[in-house]
Amino acid sequence: MELIDKMRSGNEAALARLISLAERNDSKNPEVMQAIQPLLGNAFTIGITGPPGAGKSSLTNRLTQLLREQGFTVGIIAIDPSSPFSGGAVLGDRVRMEEHYLDPGVYIRSMASRGSHGGLARATKDAIKILDAAGKDFILVETVGVGQTELDVMQTVDTVCVVLVPEGGDAIQMLKAGLMEIADLFAVNKSDRDGAPQVVSALKSILHLKYSTSGQFSQRKNAGQEIWEVPVCPTQGISGEGVLNLLETIRQHQTFIKQSGELDRRRKERRKEDLLSQLQHSMRETLEVACVQSDEIRTLMNKVENGTEASHGVIHKLLPLTLNFMLKRTIK
Amino acid sequence: MELIDKMRSGNEAALARLISLAERNDSKNPEVMQAIQPLLGNAFTIGITGPPGAGKSSLTNRLTQLLREQGFTVGIIAIDPSSPFSGGAVLGDRVRMEEHYLDPGVYIRSMASRGSHGGLARATKDAIKILDAAGKDFILVETVGVGQTELDVMQTVDTVCVVLVPEGGDAIQMLKAGLMEIADLFAVNKSDRDGAPQVVSALKSILHLKYSTSGQFSQRKNAGQEIWEVPVCPTQGISGEGVLNLLETIRQHQTFIKQSGELDRRRKERRKEDLLSQLQHSMRETLEVACVQSDEIRTLMNKVENGTEASHGVIHKLLPLTLNFMLKRTIK
Repeated sequence: MELIDKMRSGNEAALARLISLAERNDSKNPEVMQAIQPLLGNAFTIGITGPPGAGKSSLTNRLTQLLREQGFTVGIIAIDPSSPFSGGAVLGDRVRMEEHYLDPGVYIRSMASRGSHGGLARATKDAIKILDAAGKDFILVETVGVGQTELDVMQTVDTVCVVLVPEGGDAIQMLKAGLMEIADLFAVNKSDRDGAPQVVSALKSILHLKYSTSGQFSQRKNAGQEIWEVPVCPTQGISGEGVLNLLETIRQHQTFIKQSGELDRRRKERRKEDLLSQLQHSMRETLEVACVQSDEIRTLMNKVENGTEASHGVIHKLLPLTLNFMLKRTIK
Repeated sequence: MELIDKMRSGNEAALARLISLAERNDSKNPEVMQAIQPLLGNAFTIGITGPPGAGKSSLTNRLTQLLREQGFTVGIIAIDPSSPFSGGAVLGDRVRMEEHYLDPGVYIRSMASRGSHGGLARATKDAIKILDAAGKDFILVETVGVGQTELDVMQTVDTVCVVLVPEGGDAIQMLKAGLMEIADLFAVNKSDRDGAPQVVSALKSILHLKYSTSGQFSQRKNAGQEIWEVPVCPTQGISGEGVLNLLETIRQHQTFIKQSGELDRRRKERRKEDLLSQLQHSMRETLEVACVQSDEIRTLMNKVENGTEASHGVIHKLLPLTLNFMLKRTIK
């Protein structure tokens, strides 16, 4: 495809158009994804997530600056929440990124869930692939908030950095939302504030507790396998203090998962999950059509809608009917 | 079913067991759901959601107290996040509920996503139905956090109350997560704190802006239809101030959606969505089996897993194969 060749030769307009195709799940997108498949696997992707206001954008900004100084090219995907009221504030947060907009070695893209047909997680995965094919060395994916979509997005990256701030029990609250499980490393940002050392040491002891009580970890350790003990890095996104150490820790994780085979395993798992969710999505789409087009299916649906039958009672009739309908439609 | 009869006669152990069946998606659960179908539709369900630390538990506690004073029975479902680290803190938050544990007119149940096979949202829907069948007048569903699961759960209730606190831009950040769209009313809790009046009036003006710019609203207004303008209630969960007003506002919303036909429409839509997601879930399950049992399907899957083919390239081959496999398996 001409657009892909252009993108490969450094044309940012072509890159932007390809991501737009992915974002709106354009009919040309599958073709693009097939064509770039042989070009994939060279970029390393870093996810940056955490509660709103933790200073993720300024950390992303600082990390980008350091990576550029080290001669790497960078792609940035900033995930915006879908609310129509968000635009302004989020843009405000990201004004600091401005200096990078003029650097041809950095490409910055915002993705909003509203615009992404077929799901934000899918669109993000495709955008990561496009930036990978475009030859970016590092791809930073920044999400706001801690919802399921964000967790899904974080499953598409190689290293997950969870950013917390030392404030009002936020750290502990956010860990409850499932961030503890996905973190490969933590950044305790705004580390000049009161309570920062306490949060750092509390996190470290929770993490230590996790290792010492996990059978999996002791098994591995006994088998002589190396294990990754999740590090906690104090940072100050605004002044830049601690960010070089954060980047070095990220690079250590990169080396660790490459050498241990974990990176290959994660990427393989991800491609499988990708395919399954695409299949599931196709099925759901056909299902919606089936509700409209098949009298038999609609009659059963209506009974459930009106509350005269429980969904659990009709599902065994509905499933074969729907599968038959879908099969006919797929073969057509 | 004997268990249902027992539950209907007020046996809390039977009620607890039925919810446990729903929580672990036991093979007996579909039968239970079918059996209670004729008993449904009498309870009114209120969702209470918002960011961590907003004081949702103390509001739930106060609302329960008022509803009991007015002679109503209450079921409470408290949704815990899935993290293994959550137990302690959440229980701590809920110690205040203690007094209600001894009241036979109140039934309190925590649901954790970890234990709920087939999804927390599904398990919660079933638990709501069981409490409805048990004869509870009001069901309060309290969620922590603002993820997709929580949004899904909130789609199962009749009235959504979003709780915010007047702090650090939290309100605006949380609105970004999609809470603005689902709120039927807002509670600005801890209203004795600095900045509370400002948050209340900011929220009111955002909401007003929303109405005045929404074509849908002006259409309805012009057509002489009543519209619900989302109210903002200042509350203090701890002292109880403002909570009676909050309850009255909730009851006004209840009357409004009943009289406008909105309640029927919502419940109908919900039953449809329910059925679709159950179908989708069955399909996903079969899909996982297909990956293991069918050589043809596995060969295609492996190509994608190993990165030799893009998922977009094999999906049109994989879909009919999978549907055929599922159909054979469903008919068996």
